[in-house]
Amino acid sequence: MKKALIVINPNSTQSLTDGIAAALEPLHSFGIPIRCLTLAEGPPGIETQQQADLTIAPMLARAKREEPNALGYVIACFSDPGLYALRDGTALPVLGIQEAAMMTAMTLGQAVGVIAIKPASITRHMRAFGAMGVSGRIAGERALGLSVTALTGDGTLDAMIATGRALRDEDGAEVLIMGCAGMARYRDPLEQALGIPVVEPCQAAASMALGRIALNQSHKITGATDA
Amino acid sequence: MKKALIVINPNSTQSLTDGIAAALEPLHSFGIPIRCLTLAEGPPGIETQQQADLTIAPMLARAKREEPNALGYVIACFSDPGLYALRDGTALPVLGIQEAAMMTAMTLGQAVGVIAIKPASITRHMRAFGAMGVSGRIAGERALGLSVTALTGDGTLDAMIATGRALRDEDGAEVLIMGCAGMARYRDPLEQALGIPVVEPCQAAASMALGRIALNQSHKITGATDA
Amino acid sequence: MKKALIVINPNSTQSLTDGIAAALEPLHSFGIPIRCLTLAEGPPGIETQQQADLTIAPMLARAKREEPNALGYVIACFSDPGLYALRDGTALPVLGIQEAAMMTAMTLGQAVGVIAIKPASITRHMRAFGAMGVSGRIAGERALGLSVTALTGDGTLDAMIATGRALRDEDGAEVLIMGCAGMARYRDPLEQALGIPVVEPCQAAASMALGRIALNQSHKITGATDA
Amino acid sequence: MKKALIVINPNSTQSLTDGIAAALEPLHSFGIPIRCLTLAEGPPGIETQQQADLTIAPMLARAKREEPNALGYVIACFSDPGLYALRDGTALPVLGIQEAAMMTAMTLGQAVGVIAIKPASITRHMRAFGAMGVSGRIAGERALGLSVTALTGDGTLDAMIATGRALRDEDGAEVLIMGCAGMARYRDPLEQALGIPVVEPCQAAASMALGRIALNQSHKITGATDA
Amino acid sequence: MKKALIVINPNSTQSLTDGIAAALEPLHSFGIPIRCLTLAEGPPGIETQQQADLTIAPMLARAKREEPNALGYVIACFSDPGLYALRDGTALPVLGIQEAAMMTAMTLGQAVGVIAIKPASITRHMRAFGAMGVSGRIAGERALGLSVTALTGDGTLDAMIATGRALRDEDGAEVLIMGCAGMARYRDPLEQALGIPVVEPCQAAASMALGRIALNQSHKITGATDA
Amino acid sequence: MKKALIVINPNSTQSLTDGIAAALEPLHSFGIPIRCLTLAEGPPGIETQQQADLTIAPMLARAKREEPNALGYVIACFSDPGLYALRDGTALPVLGIQEAAMMTAMTLGQAVGVIAIKPASITRHMRAFGAMGVSGRIAGERALGLSVTALTGDGTLDAMIATGRALRDEDGAEVLIMGCAGMARYRDPLEQALGIPVVEPCQAAASMALGRIALNQSHKITGATDA
Repeated sequence: MKKALIVINPNSTQSLTDGIAAALEPLHSFGIPIRCLTLAEGPPGIETQQQADLTIAPMLARAKREEPNALGYVIACFSDPGLYALRDGTALPVLGIQEAAMMTAMTLGQAVGVIAIKPASITRHMRAFGAMGVSGRIAGERALGLSVTALTGDGTLDAMIATGRALRDEDGAEVLIMGCAGMARYRDPLEQALGIPVVEPCQAAASMALGRIALNQSHKITGATDA
Repeated sequence: MKKALIVINPNSTQSLTDGIAAALEPLHSFGIPIRCLTLAEGPPGIETQQQADLTIAPMLARAKREEPNALGYVIACFSDPGLYALRDGTALPVLGIQEAAMMTAMTLGQAVGVIAIKPASITRHMRAFGAMGVSGRIAGERALGLSVTALTGDGTLDAMIATGRALRDEDGAEVLIMGCAGMARYRDPLEQALGIPVVEPCQAAASMALGRIALNQSHKITGATDA
Repeated sequence: MKKALIVINPNSTQSLTDGIAAALEPLHSFGIPIRCLTLAEGPPGIETQQQADLTIAPMLARAKREEPNALGYVIACFSDPGLYALRDGTALPVLGIQEAAMMTAMTLGQAVGVIAIKPASITRHMRAFGAMGVSGRIAGERALGLSVTALTGDGTLDAMIATGRALRDEDGAEVLIMGCAGMARYRDPLEQALGIPVVEPCQAAASMALGRIALNQSHKITGATDA
Repeated sequence: MKKALIVINPNSTQSLTDGIAAALEPLHSFGIPIRCLTLAEGPPGIETQQQADLTIAPMLARAKREEPNALGYVIACFSDPGLYALRDGTALPVLGIQEAAMMTAMTLGQAVGVIAIKPASITRHMRAFGAMGVSGRIAGERALGLSVTALTGDGTLDAMIATGRALRDEDGAEVLIMGCAGMARYRDPLEQALGIPVVEPCQAAASMALGRIALNQSHKITGATDA
Repeated sequence: MKKALIVINPNSTQSLTDGIAAALEPLHSFGIPIRCLTLAEGPPGIETQQQADLTIAPMLARAKREEPNALGYVIACFSDPGLYALRDGTALPVLGIQEAAMMTAMTLGQAVGVIAIKPASITRHMRAFGAMGVSGRIAGERALGLSVTALTGDGTLDAMIATGRALRDEDGAEVLIMGCAGMARYRDPLEQALGIPVVEPCQAAASMALGRIALNQSHKITGATDA
Repeated sequence: MKKALIVINPNSTQSLTDGIAAALEPLHSFGIPIRCLTLAEGPPGIETQQQADLTIAPMLARAKREEPNALGYVIACFSDPGLYALRDGTALPVLGIQEAAMMTAMTLGQAVGVIAIKPASITRHMRAFGAMGVSGRIAGERALGLSVTALTGDGTLDAMIATGRALRDEDGAEVLIMGCAGMARYRDPLEQALGIPVVEPCQAAASMALGRIALNQSHKITGATDA
């Protein structure tokens, strides 16, 4: 099998993985294969820290199996479960979609707004932004109030526009992050409706990962003379 | 002329531009042309805020002339001169190398060290990290004490290793940023000598810019229905 | 000509300069001449980062011409364009009105609110507050939605009171900064209407500059034995 | 008696008050009388939080007695004891020397170093910088290891230079604050020895206070229509 | 008299002290006596920094008198008056209720909301949270608008629920702190009404203090070999 | 079985659990049983994020089995693995030893130093302090350079004193945290050697947990009328 960037959706919903794959199509022109996988052992959707943490063991096992054919990894859940654990185990580039989305958003606007699916996710995301040391750039995070699996319903775009408008008008956000994998098809209509940039986190992470692969940029340097 | 990512070296030293171009060669495989330009009106090297600021007007003029053939811009000076001014004037992606290097480094290690050329640059960089809201991630910045144009001399690598070692061992840096364009050829030997990742800022910015171009991701959304 | 504190309005609107001069009249009793200049090369008003940055070159040139008759400088635009560039070039005191207004406001109340003219200025100001390391003291910034040149119209005070009231009541501001030169005549009625202190930034900067002049306090020490 | 800016030394050492008065002589040209008082009830020097807090009651009583002849107040102890308590009780300008020194230093350099007399004061100062929201601007604080009353001895300047050099060279300070009233006569030799600006906190506070008086700028607005 | 944890209410309202004592009853099972005292010299309620500061001298005197029978201290006013002064004077554990409540709340939810009695207290509390270095965890603070002594009135619970709901729904608070001693009896109904944890600060401080006593954990180590 | 506070050592080294149990003996007087368990599925020591994350699943399973006899939980590994996951699954109090140690240390000194076992743990701890929003209180973290299981060797105390002295003298720490479970017996000699408070994290967490149990204080309120 040709080596590829491995994008792991740590939940078990194949339609979400399909949505991620579609989001990454514009990056095929870079000439590096991208393979999107569904973690069979994951829950249908990840809504709690407990669900997120319990995907780590099977995700690490899956990544290990893929390693011979891997050029790098993207963990495609906005909670970045196992991001540092996977980095511990490989020298290949590993990007998490929350981290990459934030790094991308910070170059598109000063005040960043985040659209979450569920209110309970906000506290988890805030801890992660704190760990990144970027809390000061968060204008606000607001939840749609829809379940992850219900994200295909008709009212989703309307809910996203309403939530994004509140982030923009009440919280002062100048750029939005979609705080969930699987929302990619709403990026363009959301930007058009609100007039501010919208970051789709899988796109952000995959494009950063491809750059790392091309540049041979790793978080782990082996064989150093003075480590 | 085929449209390209335009990388503008705002100083007038062509050899530095050549070094930047060499640093970006691994990104040619992405299939998007990259054109590196030297700003004739710039000083030989940028060491003060005054020098940095005075490149903005000619840089903006040059960017405007290039716009018909541009897919995006990288401003290839670590002071990011005119970054926000250029973003004001175009909807094409615009990346600055300090900003992009920091966003990249933050995904490679928790504590970030910066190697500056001159001591006087540190205060300028610190203001910029503060404006980005990421000061808490900076472990330290230390200067080589060489002039920008002397960066080709034999002792440069030794000076960089010594400076990087101090950042790693005394300041606790886990990842280093080369705080200057034109140091690219030292990235690999520096990583090998010190055993921690080293970010070359032009590579960081160009790879992010290429991702934006492929994804049609802009900081400025035009024609929104509810702006 | 007698040496004076030089206050440079970097936009070309003389009536704004006149407003600044009026604002500084109470400081004439300190016995140090104050001269307010209009930068002919500037735009009528500064609303974008691009406009701000393009005033730097002519501002520096003008300051250089004034240097023989100068005791110090105030850059009288709330974006503080060229503040650090001018400090690079002179050992005389140089104050920017955003920086000085913030330092003043922080001694008048804990939570600081800022009244901007245009929404687009807020992101520029936030970057600057971040560079100063004082973002945690900002309760909020809100825009009037008037152009700089329209600030003489009848509804201006009403708009300022409404904006200030929102900063006080919704954002918790305990002190307000007028985020623009040329609003000085509204300081007293605004304080009377809202009951919280209001900082006029040109007054803040000029009074700090006069103190520096009297105390011979410079940012640049020349002739040190151990620099 | 002519109304004056009242500078209260909250310790009982008259020679310190004399040193403060000498430090403020350059500000006499502003035409506003300055009166420096010694708080008889204070301890000979303030080295603990307990000593600082116990000066508040007599300091407030003294300020109240002086109010009919006061234009404003400076509390001339670097712990700013009673700063907010005094502001509660008067609408006249009240400046504390730690707060004012920091606001001044932040306009003279990015990284601020503080010279303390005693190690035990550092924690007290750090809490205050935290309350001001400016901790990120502190490069370091180091102690001389001399008692307040011993500050007149011969080795004081040498100790200050050595401490300032460590702050500059090891901690990266670009501007120094003398963390004690009564060190004013060392400002010039310290600047000359180290080549970076030095802020004498009584000068910083008094010059800000004189500006407030001239500008009729108060922290407390009375008689507002919509308070 | 048996040695006890001494809880000092620095205001003179005995009914408040009684409320504090009632709040601490569940901690009697720990086997360490708790004695709640009223500071006769204090004001009926503490609403300003001046009132808070003026309780320090008599509080310190009272603590000194109690020392022979003390195992530790809690200062039971949310402004933590004299917290550091008392720590200066004793090696017994000293807890302040604002500090302890915040440390407790930070383990119960990410975003912390504070219910104040009076609007004027908010600025005082914010300075203290800044000094603690935890401002980033504060979602908001809102005032009931009741006087301290009116806290026994019938509408108090309703006002607290309304204020808590605004903190939860508008500011995003996930845990609430009751920003005043003497509100303990409202903790349960408030939790039941709003569904988020509520920290009663006297309980938080006393339980921490009892742990320190049992563990012999002091802020001041005496007799060290290398101090 | 009598209900107890359950302290889970997530590594499989029983001698470490024994050390934890010994550390908690002074808390037995509070009358609440404490049961210390060893997680058989854990690694001998936890040195990487991967090891930490992989203990979460068996730890959650174990906690679930213990729930009928539990009054609360302490996760006794300084990486706080599964802290938020366990809180998701129970309304009983759950304390992590890193979080609790930091909350405790912040009431014992302003600048906090952390003694880690291994250098690689520092980055993991720093992310956690960032997530807590308390990075500004960290003076430094330094590693002993010993493996977790070697912590019983003779040179351990010497290494801890040397590391603590560097944190105190070079980094300015005023209070130390032992960044590992199983170091409890060194707390007293370390305090005596260095003269500053030392927090043993299991003691900190258990004493906070006992307070929560006595006060019926939970992070999760069930049955609220308006959740």
